[in-house]
Amino acid sequence: MRLTRRNLLMSTAATAAAQPPAQPTAPAPAPPRSPGWPGSCRSFRGEALREIAFPLGGIGTGTVSLGGRGDLRDWEIFNRPNKGGLLPFTFAALRLKGGGLSRPVIRALERRPLPPFSGPSGVPRETALGLPRFREAVFTGAYPFAHIRFQDARLPVEVSLEAFNPMVPLDTDASGLPVALLTYRFTSRAASPLEAAVAFSIMNPVGYDGVTHLRGRRAAFFGANLNEFRNEKDLRGLFLSSQKYPPDSVRHGSLALLTTVPDVSCRLEWEHGGWWDEFQKWWDEFLARGRFTNAPSKPSPEGLTEYATLAAHLNLAPGETKEVLFVLAWRFPNGENYWTAEKERAGAPLRNYYGTRWPSAFEPAAYAIRNLESLRRRSERYRDLLHGSTLPAPVIDAVSSQASILRTNTLMVMEGKLALAFEGCNDNAGCCPMNCTHVYNYEQTLAHLYPDLERSMRDTDFLVNLRPDGSMSFRTPVPLRPGGNRNQPAADGQMGCVLKVYREWRLSGDDAWLRKLWPHLKRALEYAWTQWDADRDGVMEGEQHNTYDIEFYGPNSMVGTLYLGALAAAARMARHLGDDSAATYEELFKKGSARLDELLFNGEYYVQKVDERQEKAGRYQYGEGCLSDQLLGQWFAEVVDLGKLLPPDHLRAALRSIFRYNYRQEFGDFPNTQRLYALNDEKGLLVCSWPHDKRPALPLVYSDEVWTGIEYQVAAHLFYEDLIKEGLAIVSAVRERYDGARRNPWNEIECGHHYARAMSSWSLLTALSGFSYSAPDRELRFRPRVQRGDFRCLFSCGTAWGGYSQTLAKEKLDVELSVEGGALELVTLRMPYLGAKPKLAAPFKGAVTLAYAELAIRPAAPLRLAPGDALRLTVTEG
Amino acid sequence: MRLTRRNLLMSTAATAAAQPPAQPTAPAPAPPRSPGWPGSCRSFRGEALREIAFPLGGIGTGTVSLGGRGDLRDWEIFNRPNKGGLLPFTFAALRLKGGGLSRPVIRALERRPLPPFSGPSGVPRETALGLPRFREAVFTGAYPFAHIRFQDARLPVEVSLEAFNPMVPLDTDASGLPVALLTYRFTSRAASPLEAAVAFSIMNPVGYDGVTHLRGRRAAFFGANLNEFRNEKDLRGLFLSSQKYPPDSVRHGSLALLTTVPDVSCRLEWEHGGWWDEFQKWWDEFLARGRFTNAPSKPSPEGLTEYATLAAHLNLAPGETKEVLFVLAWRFPNGENYWTAEKERAGAPLRNYYGTRWPSAFEPAAYAIRNLESLRRRSERYRDLLHGSTLPAPVIDAVSSQASILRTNTLMVMEGKLALAFEGCNDNAGCCPMNCTHVYNYEQTLAHLYPDLERSMRDTDFLVNLRPDGSMSFRTPVPLRPGGNRNQPAADGQMGCVLKVYREWRLSGDDAWLRKLWPHLKRALEYAWTQWDADRDGVMEGEQHNTYDIEFYGPNSMVGTLYLGALAAAARMARHLGDDSAATYEELFKKGSARLDELLFNGEYYVQKVDERQEKAGRYQYGEGCLSDQLLGQWFAEVVDLGKLLPPDHLRAALRSIFRYNYRQEFGDFPNTQRLYALNDEKGLLVCSWPHDKRPALPLVYSDEVWTGIEYQVAAHLFYEDLIKEGLAIVSAVRERYDGARRNPWNEIECGHHYARAMSSWSLLTALSGFSYSAPDRELRFRPRVQRGDFRCLFSCGTAWGGYSQTLAKEKLDVELSVEGGALELVTLRMPYLGAKPKLAAPFKGAVTLAYAELAIRPAAPLRLAPGDALRLTVTEG
Repeated sequence: MRLTRRNLLMSTAATAAAQPPAQPTAPAPAPPRSPGWPGSCRSFRGEALREIAFPLGGIGTGTVSLGGRGDLRDWEIFNRPNKGGLLPFTFAALRLKGGGLSRPVIRALERRPLPPFSGPSGVPRETALGLPRFREAVFTGAYPFAHIRFQDARLPVEVSLEAFNPMVPLDTDASGLPVALLTYRFTSRAASPLEAAVAFSIMNPVGYDGVTHLRGRRAAFFGANLNEFRNEKDLRGLFLSSQKYPPDSVRHGSLALLTTVPDVSCRLEWEHGGWWDEFQKWWDEFLARGRFTNAPSKPSPEGLTEYATLAAHLNLAPGETKEVLFVLAWRFPNGENYWTAEKERAGAPLRNYYGTRWPSAFEPAAYAIRNLESLRRRSERYRDLLHGSTLPAPVIDAVSSQASILRTNTLMVMEGKLALAFEGCNDNAGCCPMNCTHVYNYEQTLAHLYPDLERSMRDTDFLVNLRPDGSMSFRTPVPLRPGGNRNQPAADGQMGCVLKVYREWRLSGDDAWLRKLWPHLKRALEYAWTQWDADRDGVMEGEQHNTYDIEFYGPNSMVGTLYLGALAAAARMARHLGDDSAATYEELFKKGSARLDELLFNGEYYVQKVDERQEKAGRYQYGEGCLSDQLLGQWFAEVVDLGKLLPPDHLRAALRSIFRYNYRQEFGDFPNTQRLYALNDEKGLLVCSWPHDKRPALPLVYSDEVWTGIEYQVAAHLFYEDLIKEGLAIVSAVRERYDGARRNPWNEIECGHHYARAMSSWSLLTALSGFSYSAPDRELRFRPRVQRGDFRCLFSCGTAWGGYSQTLAKEKLDVELSVEGGALELVTLRMPYLGAKPKLAAPFKGAVTLAYAELAIRPAAPLRLAPGDALRLTVTEG
Repeated sequence: MRLTRRNLLMSTAATAAAQPPAQPTAPAPAPPRSPGWPGSCRSFRGEALREIAFPLGGIGTGTVSLGGRGDLRDWEIFNRPNKGGLLPFTFAALRLKGGGLSRPVIRALERRPLPPFSGPSGVPRETALGLPRFREAVFTGAYPFAHIRFQDARLPVEVSLEAFNPMVPLDTDASGLPVALLTYRFTSRAASPLEAAVAFSIMNPVGYDGVTHLRGRRAAFFGANLNEFRNEKDLRGLFLSSQKYPPDSVRHGSLALLTTVPDVSCRLEWEHGGWWDEFQKWWDEFLARGRFTNAPSKPSPEGLTEYATLAAHLNLAPGETKEVLFVLAWRFPNGENYWTAEKERAGAPLRNYYGTRWPSAFEPAAYAIRNLESLRRRSERYRDLLHGSTLPAPVIDAVSSQASILRTNTLMVMEGKLALAFEGCNDNAGCCPMNCTHVYNYEQTLAHLYPDLERSMRDTDFLVNLRPDGSMSFRTPVPLRPGGNRNQPAADGQMGCVLKVYREWRLSGDDAWLRKLWPHLKRALEYAWTQWDADRDGVMEGEQHNTYDIEFYGPNSMVGTLYLGALAAAARMARHLGDDSAATYEELFKKGSARLDELLFNGEYYVQKVDERQEKAGRYQYGEGCLSDQLLGQWFAEVVDLGKLLPPDHLRAALRSIFRYNYRQEFGDFPNTQRLYALNDEKGLLVCSWPHDKRPALPLVYSDEVWTGIEYQVAAHLFYEDLIKEGLAIVSAVRERYDGARRNPWNEIECGHHYARAMSSWSLLTALSGFSYSAPDRELRFRPRVQRGDFRCLFSCGTAWGGYSQTLAKEKLDVELSVEGGALELVTLRMPYLGAKPKLAAPFKGAVTLAYAELAIRPAAPLRLAPGDALRLTVTEG
């Protein structure tokens, strides 16, 4: 069944398509485009701009970041991280003439620099910070969109920049373009016509190794760099390449810088000269003429590259607004394994998936321009449904900003769409490799937004890394190797992988995929019985390597709940597949649940029963401590709607204890010999604490640290238990630490930048919206926990994404469910209701039942919603 | 003649020593010791602490810097710069018990960290920033003393730190101790007895290469590191060494950390362990016991070193104040030439002078303790005479802070007291080597404070670097090589060296030394006639390489005034030595002066007459520009009291023009394609400007930059011309740029940190005090230009240093001249007088004459003032 965009779908419409809609389409909430962005976005100015680096790039393409001041920084498009990496003299500048100005003025399209200015030879001149620039900038970010308003009252124009890379849930290709789209917007405040030129300068970096600190255009790896001008009907600009490196070289690549502005001028090579002449002559030409003189270019000499400039020329009438779009695109198709110490793998070539889609950087740039309207519209819908939701602003901020991680160097996508994921990024290298099972226990964003990539990680887990004995390599050597590496398996990671398969299956409904993995999954699960739960009582007591990089000895609820969750999930999958091990798993789950609770609940929370017989158990255990992760498996169970793994009252008590004992209002007086993620007056949630003076001499290794991934996990779990205030305190604490002056709001740090664990943030959304989708059952549920009277949110359920909104009053519910992408099949819809006798308003036809204030609505026939479809229904008291 | 300390010396006393002083000694102005420091010191707190790194170290010993927060940073004691270099877990901490505290508390003796906190794994834990610490700190610096008041109202003590390295003018050895003296001062605010322990922890760094980023105690260069406890009657503490490196190895060395507190405990090795155990156990022991358990130590295994802790234990009664002195000393006797690309010189061993004075680090530490009273008193006298002077605060700040340069890695002192001076320091290497004649044209601080080292540079200039043809290598290869390198000589540097010899001779009166250099000096001067002034008209028109790293073509007053100054100085020396070339020099001076003025004065300032016939003259010349350095030679002539080299009215007009055209009130709108030393709303003096749209397309290479060394030079010259307001505006501009938040007040930057040119700042003092001393004539002059009614200042005249003060009223002058070090011989004293018929008050006997409001007093017999002597005299209207 196909419905027209934004039409009202009712049950009768679903079963009798000929009927006209009962009322006109009302658009879903769509906050206006910048600068009128949703109020949920934080704004930054002054000192708070300093640490901002907003990543611009697609999935698996690398990124260049937009600095808070409008500068381009951290050039990480060369197949590895490069924090602080700068391309010399790569910047945009504006020249204005007329409009009442006594003489032409030039401003770099950046805010003035922020201190310190303490380099050994001053501020590096290759930043072009010697040019006049704007006095202030106001940065707003709603990932994937960044917006900067440049302020300088003395200029006769208003200037802003919108920057983004297309991001469309479920559409990995549309979200995997190697481009940065920069739109400068100018509104004349002048009383007379104004002539504007926007010059974008760039160094041709082809050949760059991606890590060397560049000071200019001289480096051994440069040479034969060629800049060309290309002019097509609808676009034009620069194509930067090098003839030095063959197509299979890791240094091979190209860049494109295109615009749609018809009137352009350019310089393919800056004039050469000694000392500062090149930049000086650039300045002189731009100031004096406002246009650049093109000349044929030739490949650069060995050891040198070239700067180029593309300028767009506009005339602005008084009050008029015009935009200049620059599309920066790149293609560096060949990476290599630079991180391994293994001789046989070091330097192994890696071909990027995106590199196989495009022959050069020109095509994705042109593609982005020619499909801009659709790419932007769909990206804006994602942004607006998330940022226009009624979730608390810090939650939106956390969900939105940390979705950026999957589009940084933390996640590589190789040919065949193979996802290879670091935990995070050090300044110049991913860290640690690769697809770490236990760190990726926490991540929920990729699973919900790009489930195809998430499933590729499951394939690697079970079809490659699982060994004959049922143990799973918890890291992935690259290139892939059957059985992975030789390290012990991680108990938490291995159990988590069972839960993750369950999640992927629920979101996809792909039985064939599940069947493919099933025998391996069973082996992985049952490996627990030979290793961790040798007595098969449903409680692990063996040596359990885990995400704290140590081994737990003795029963604990952190790995324990993951084990219980794995058993429960496996039982459900087994039932679905008709595998009679379901009963075994169910029985063990039941036994284990009771035993774990009995062993470990201390009245306040779940402790670890340290196995003192183990020689190594004298250190790094948490014992009587209150571990923030103690209910990790339960949190995952909530996300995938598996139900309670332990007695509900104990779960709730334990969560309250976690908040009470581990949430700190300040760190200035908190002694911490471990790593430092919260300082001074910052707030945060400790990994573990020992409330009653039971701290071991050598405690759990990361106990005194603060990990945003765990903080979001606990916050989401608090939300699931309707402990909203507590969860919100934690989320706010994290986001306040990332305030632009102290840390980059778009880069949460743990063991590395853009740390994957922080993508537990997606569960904040699923928790507060009470989202659940089972593709096998075609059942969708929302159970909003905040703003229930007038609730709006984004959802992404594996096969579709869109918006959900409800108006809930006493004895009346209005619902709208819109699909933006994918296809949503529905047999059952669940949502809250406050009355006693629900009745579906005509003309929707279907059954409705009510239990525990939740409706189950079953349309007369299954529905299928496609992009543009919207389902509306009203339930009133019958 | 020897006088007792602080006695009044009168002419009768000088000639008839038996006479008692006429009135009791009044002490010279001596501002109280910290915290009641002179008002001239800037205080820093909050953000302004961020960039502060106050160098602690002696001449030629390297330094460790005291950070604004009280941390030790930039460990540059390993014979090269090391900006950002950190010794892991090297910090001081305070434990308090009793005094009303419910339980013991520990605070690192540092302020809380300042953002950003954005490393890839958080703030590095090896900074020990995880310990509780003070909420705020107020940093005050009056080089060589730094003072920090730590603030935390919740603690029952007031805590401060005073840190310094002894600095005594003229006493190169007392000022060349490889030590940092750190005195923590505690005053109890408690109502009951308080138990305090101050634990100083340090990593044994022997073997460190001085540049690697250390994260812990593991590194290939470590091994066989041994920490020992030494206990002597009056001092005790740690001795850190290594048995891995023989005495001639560049890695050989030792450290000592001593205290005078009787009750100490220590740990020679922290307890070993995995993960964070070592620091955790340290914390646990200190918190629980407050003392450390010593145990015998042994050399560390290969690839590892050890941490050690020395704790001092005190009891404080209510209201009581006690001090804990820690003396950190080091000896790394062997450097090497790490900077050259010359194969034959790369890695050449260099033996530090200070290394030859002490067998290990223990001895200078013990020496500093045993001579502390004298070292501190004399250093304080220097500080207090400078900071207690009546000079404007920014001037004192500039003179004082930039004297630190001569005690950084910018200046090395090799065995035999050979001074080898870089221009400045890059982050990890001196830059550029070595004894650059033109950069050291500007430096006046070393010449006045440590003239023995300055003379060693002249010896190198004339006895080593001067080539047979009379050209001088303007850089010094190390080890020394006759004739230096093969580069062209620098015209400005070579002429400047003649002026510098004149200065050194005037300050020392050492005729033998002058005679030794004289024939070489003549050759160097007369080389001008074969090269730069081939037509011998007193004006250079040949290719003149200079401090802007380019060549001037055609006459210019920058090199031109240095040439005139050299001629004038050489003439005076020739007259003194009875060399009849004096007449030649005088005649040429006269001719040149007239011709230069005629050629170059444009009515406003002196231009360059570009020699258009030279092919290379089309670029990097200043032509019609107003060069800030255009009167460089005249400035030097003022410092050495050579008189006017050009018509006085033209000089004054040119100086006014320099200020008018080159002093900028802001840089945010100033386009600069060159290096960036002033930004945004900062103020500063441009190297050059072209007032009347005569800017060449490719102008003088550094024209748009702002160099503090030139700014001070011009400011001092403005002072010499009584243009006080203008000079002060420039000095204030510099010091405001170095405000702690933007840049380090104790590190002025040009081509490198601690750039030597900034030591032109000493001339601010000579200018405002009108100081002049001629040792050959034994004539001392003061001509205060500010606060003449009640003037006080420091002087250092080559053979002596001390204080000068005057009270000048209509028809009355009171003068006190005190000598703190060296010996001052006086035949003539000159100072201002406002009356018409001066008469020396009894009992001083001598002749007095008045001319142009300046007295010349000639004691009946020559005076000789030794340390402690003070000369007082009163002149009234007769």
